[in-house]
Amino acid sequence: MAPHANTSDPALRSPAQIPLRPLNAAADDEGLRTTRIPLLDGTPRVPGGFAPKAFVGEVLPFGVVSFREGHDIIGVQLRLTAPDGSQSLHRLHPLLDGSDRWAVEVALDVQGAWSFSFEAFADDFATWAHAAELKVEAGVDVPVMAALGAGLLTRAAAEKDRPAAQRKLLKATADSLVDAAADVTLAASTDAALAQIFHERPLTSLGSTTAPQTLLVEREAAGVGAWYEFFPRSEGAKRLKDGTIKSGTFRTAAKRLPGVAAMGFDVVYLVPIHPIGTTNRKGRNNTLTAEPGDPGSPYAIGAAEGGHDAIHPDLGGPADFRAFVRAASAQGLEVALDLALQASPDHPWVTEHPEWFTTLPDGTIAYAENPPKKYQDIYPLNFDNDPAGIYQEMLRVVMHWVRQGVKIFRVDNPHTKPLQFWEWLIATVNASDPDVIFLAEAFTRPAVMRALAAVGFQQSYSYFTWRNTKAELEEFLTSVSQETSDYMRPNLFVNTHDILTEYLQYGGRAAYKVRACIAATAAPVYGVYAGYELFENVARPGSEENIDNEKYEYKLRDWEGAEAAGTSLAPLLRRLNAIRREHPALRQLRNFRAHWSEDDAILVYSKHLDAAFTGTGQHDTIIVVANVDPHSVRETTVHLDSTVWGVPRGESFEVEDLITGAVWTWTDHNYVRLDSFSEPVHILKVRARS
Amino acid sequence: MAPHANTSDPALRSPAQIPLRPLNAAADDEGLRTTRIPLLDGTPRVPGGFAPKAFVGEVLPFGVVSFREGHDIIGVQLRLTAPDGSQSLHRLHPLLDGSDRWAVEVALDVQGAWSFSFEAFADDFATWAHAAELKVEAGVDVPVMAALGAGLLTRAAAEKDRPAAQRKLLKATADSLVDAAADVTLAASTDAALAQIFHERPLTSLGSTTAPQTLLVEREAAGVGAWYEFFPRSEGAKRLKDGTIKSGTFRTAAKRLPGVAAMGFDVVYLVPIHPIGTTNRKGRNNTLTAEPGDPGSPYAIGAAEGGHDAIHPDLGGPADFRAFVRAASAQGLEVALDLALQASPDHPWVTEHPEWFTTLPDGTIAYAENPPKKYQDIYPLNFDNDPAGIYQEMLRVVMHWVRQGVKIFRVDNPHTKPLQFWEWLIATVNASDPDVIFLAEAFTRPAVMRALAAVGFQQSYSYFTWRNTKAELEEFLTSVSQETSDYMRPNLFVNTHDILTEYLQYGGRAAYKVRACIAATAAPVYGVYAGYELFENVARPGSEENIDNEKYEYKLRDWEGAEAAGTSLAPLLRRLNAIRREHPALRQLRNFRAHWSEDDAILVYSKHLDAAFTGTGQHDTIIVVANVDPHSVRETTVHLDSTVWGVPRGESFEVEDLITGAVWTWTDHNYVRLDSFSEPVHILKVRARS
Repeated sequence: MAPHANTSDPALRSPAQIPLRPLNAAADDEGLRTTRIPLLDGTPRVPGGFAPKAFVGEVLPFGVVSFREGHDIIGVQLRLTAPDGSQSLHRLHPLLDGSDRWAVEVALDVQGAWSFSFEAFADDFATWAHAAELKVEAGVDVPVMAALGAGLLTRAAAEKDRPAAQRKLLKATADSLVDAAADVTLAASTDAALAQIFHERPLTSLGSTTAPQTLLVEREAAGVGAWYEFFPRSEGAKRLKDGTIKSGTFRTAAKRLPGVAAMGFDVVYLVPIHPIGTTNRKGRNNTLTAEPGDPGSPYAIGAAEGGHDAIHPDLGGPADFRAFVRAASAQGLEVALDLALQASPDHPWVTEHPEWFTTLPDGTIAYAENPPKKYQDIYPLNFDNDPAGIYQEMLRVVMHWVRQGVKIFRVDNPHTKPLQFWEWLIATVNASDPDVIFLAEAFTRPAVMRALAAVGFQQSYSYFTWRNTKAELEEFLTSVSQETSDYMRPNLFVNTHDILTEYLQYGGRAAYKVRACIAATAAPVYGVYAGYELFENVARPGSEENIDNEKYEYKLRDWEGAEAAGTSLAPLLRRLNAIRREHPALRQLRNFRAHWSEDDAILVYSKHLDAAFTGTGQHDTIIVVANVDPHSVRETTVHLDSTVWGVPRGESFEVEDLITGAVWTWTDHNYVRLDSFSEPVHILKVRARS
Repeated sequence: MAPHANTSDPALRSPAQIPLRPLNAAADDEGLRTTRIPLLDGTPRVPGGFAPKAFVGEVLPFGVVSFREGHDIIGVQLRLTAPDGSQSLHRLHPLLDGSDRWAVEVALDVQGAWSFSFEAFADDFATWAHAAELKVEAGVDVPVMAALGAGLLTRAAAEKDRPAAQRKLLKATADSLVDAAADVTLAASTDAALAQIFHERPLTSLGSTTAPQTLLVEREAAGVGAWYEFFPRSEGAKRLKDGTIKSGTFRTAAKRLPGVAAMGFDVVYLVPIHPIGTTNRKGRNNTLTAEPGDPGSPYAIGAAEGGHDAIHPDLGGPADFRAFVRAASAQGLEVALDLALQASPDHPWVTEHPEWFTTLPDGTIAYAENPPKKYQDIYPLNFDNDPAGIYQEMLRVVMHWVRQGVKIFRVDNPHTKPLQFWEWLIATVNASDPDVIFLAEAFTRPAVMRALAAVGFQQSYSYFTWRNTKAELEEFLTSVSQETSDYMRPNLFVNTHDILTEYLQYGGRAAYKVRACIAATAAPVYGVYAGYELFENVARPGSEENIDNEKYEYKLRDWEGAEAAGTSLAPLLRRLNAIRREHPALRQLRNFRAHWSEDDAILVYSKHLDAAFTGTGQHDTIIVVANVDPHSVRETTVHLDSTVWGVPRGESFEVEDLITGAVWTWTDHNYVRLDSFSEPVHILKVRARS
């Protein structure tokens, strides 16, 4: 357990860890809310008082407002308590922008519940050294400053937890200051070794502290991963001679896993794998009548064969599923299941637990509805009829799949169930199985999506698919990386079985490329629904989803054929995922920074990770320049704030295009030409300076 | 105790008070943070968890985010507990802007510590009526909806705290719905009387509530008032035949009170009235050597004659001071004293309590300093040497003056004393004397100014004097009226003895007019330092304060002569203060709204108070249009959002210029011509519509 600390200004950078020493907490004898040195507005913080979240390896910015009256110098530090109770201190640096805000970045490296508090103190040596230097140089108060210095150093030398050699040095310097002349006093006030000693372990008074706050550090996959969604029934499905289609199985679907792994994905997410109801089953293209052979929507869960803990007989049995999970794991892939808490009219719950639904005065069970519209293939649960029973059953279902090796759940429409239920379910599951991750599939109003994230969802679908212009993307990516990143992690799916945006429908191949490049680099979690590689861009008329939607039928696709024909996006996805693996800067969310270009379709952003956190001793910096107009060739100038990656304004640096291999010398102002019809995006690595 | 409730949309306006009924609080059996129906992000709220503040008569916006899963209708209400423990409920209306935010405005009419909480509930009748109307019209589920309606109304009829007649009506309607046909069901679902019954007292389930929060309601003068600052020693001072000046006294200064009262001010603020030190006394224009006859800065407090509880012998004795306070009171004026917690070297504290200062190794007491610069007429207190002793002494000083009839203190440089001290002092004084008001004179960084307000200061000086362009004023006034108004009340002084801005130095008479008009109308508290009426606009070269500053000498002014000569601003100030008294909309802070004009020097804003809060039954609306370029004649079009005062877009309304008496017919787009050399500001009253 050795967290890393960093500040963006090298001059202010503090050592990785400050030696531990307790501060005197400001005694709150009078019931006061303020401490002797104020500590206000600490971050991370989540609206509503929920615990902020980070993932293992995430570089987390901590900040607090602190100041004191007068001119004396203060110091501020962060006290981190790891899940095992061990503590570390990290010195904050002042932003010096008039905000009185102090900051430090720390990468947390252990999963579990941490706590953090801020501490402020009068930095007595720094105050003395600053005043002594100015006064001695001005010929003012020399004897007084010498005597004050002697007193301070004597006090420091008496601190028993300083190393003996240091205490000896401090005592000797203290003695030299007694009745010292100007030159001796000036020398002590500007001595680099003394400054270093007191920077590492300040001589403090007026110690003040905030109450400890909880910080939840989750496993890396909570915040980092490339997801690939598919319907297992389609993989290995075959058209028979009679024209009907034989369903794929877990065994045939497992044959797709090496291909998915070869593209570099981390997670395979399966739509529901449970038995599908027959009552009011939906037909192709969401028609109300299923034809013979129509497999039905996997979201109409439950049939005679079982419900949420059962497996659709067409896919195989429990052993087949476990074999599939093992095969995925062997390829470095985790399996994510869909958690859609609703029932077809044929679900065993309906007969065994009618109290979990809404029974109408006529004795029937209420369908899902948006009055006067009804959805007759689905019964929604009524969580208020028997909360205890329903809560326990949902917990049982989740834990059943956890025992089958599933640690990730994509939760269907969580905003149609009580928020309180999710807070309870996620906390309860994570109490015994902290590795379990829940992704909220809520496409609804911002307050609801944020609340779901705040109460515990580790990841969230987002508005990404509908943010397509440069202005929209800049605003969206800045918002998710800065405003809500203490609790909400967007998973940037480029498409889903429910979403085929107009941008993709009408943007041609360039649109597919641009969106994949942005999704894979702007945030550390992103996802692709199978078929994206094949540019499947035809929507059901009037809808925003694919025609002949896989929700209602099998899809037979020829992955290898497309790639052999050069008509697959798989090579680009493979390259993007490789770039993500090579560049730790792309495995962070909060380091997104938009830069400027004159062109209203040229989006520019950087992702920078300081050398302190890369593990290589080198900074890692990626610059992305994307032409988001998929029908154009654009030429413009991009303007970069290169100080973000430590290059002073005006200095040049080398960049390498990770897609094409081109190398250029760039400065903070650079000509670019981006052609939608060939390469619409630069993904540039900033090369280490020689 | 009968608070008023209001919403801006008349259709959604709720009755003044909802009949009381307890809701079932959502039992937090599982240690959950969310309630069954979420209630998040409630306001008012102060960063750091300090109690939000309002003043008696202030119209306070309450808000909270609330939503539930699915399509069922919810209701949200505010539960207010008055200082006497009595409770009232106020229904919130949804903003319907996608934010899931609910809001209601309430004017709190009793001083003291209130508490508030939000409650949400499923509005069962509204949900049924909405679905029943849609379904019956669509011919769907008619028997089911009739039966559900009968059940709901039967349940409501059984609620024992409903009036007997209402219960009878509900039961009869319930009975009529048993096996009812479509027309009967539709009639019940759209019945206005039933809707009104359930709007006033909804039929609820899933009741959820937030924890009560404290809200401090202070007396009106904490948030409303026109201040007039003067140096009592100047009022009645006389030049003697030998050229020296004889100090004014409280008795001569009292002769100025009728003039101040006639201008319509509410508060007279006196700079420190205590004995002034002679050691290192400052001379005229802040020179380091005082000449014989120089009275010294009143901020160098303390001499042989006494300290902070003493009165400068030139001004008179305690009886004279009390007579001055009585004379002010007789004129409707409150006296505010300066609280400057520092000592001249001659202050009794220096000998009696040297431990309250910093003693240097050479035995001397440390001057105030900004190393290497020193301020040798002032010793700062060291609050850390003997906090208990200093705290008690400062409390004693304040309470001494409270006993002399002073209830308002203008605190000099509070940011140079510990924030914690102010939290303690203000809370301690207000615990016994809640009428005491402290104004923070802190011109420093935003975080510090905000923290002082948050810990208890009732009013704050602000950046107003340095916000002179239209863009600056719009941003500033919007910020203070919206962002920080839950805890910070800006007192818009147009000038002080320390501040004569370049805008006033070089803007001529127009600048003085414009600034007075804006200060008096944009916020409910504003202030003027004596001499503003006389356009005293000459600064000490290189400084931002008046030459021959009154801090260091007596000022002899001829108020009556200037007014007789027509060269005084007093008539405008008199008119402005009269307008403030006539228009309750101007006695609110949060109702500032900027409107648009094409001209970058034409500032436009409105202050609107809904009829529910004016006490007259009529809306009160003021529109201010100001030419903030004091050297120009400007013509432009102003564009108003007239819906703010209830006039639909495009409709015309009459406005009356309260300065000139002109009457115009305006719409949402209006031509204006503002001449700095005659009348640079329109202060327009929107006339009630006939």
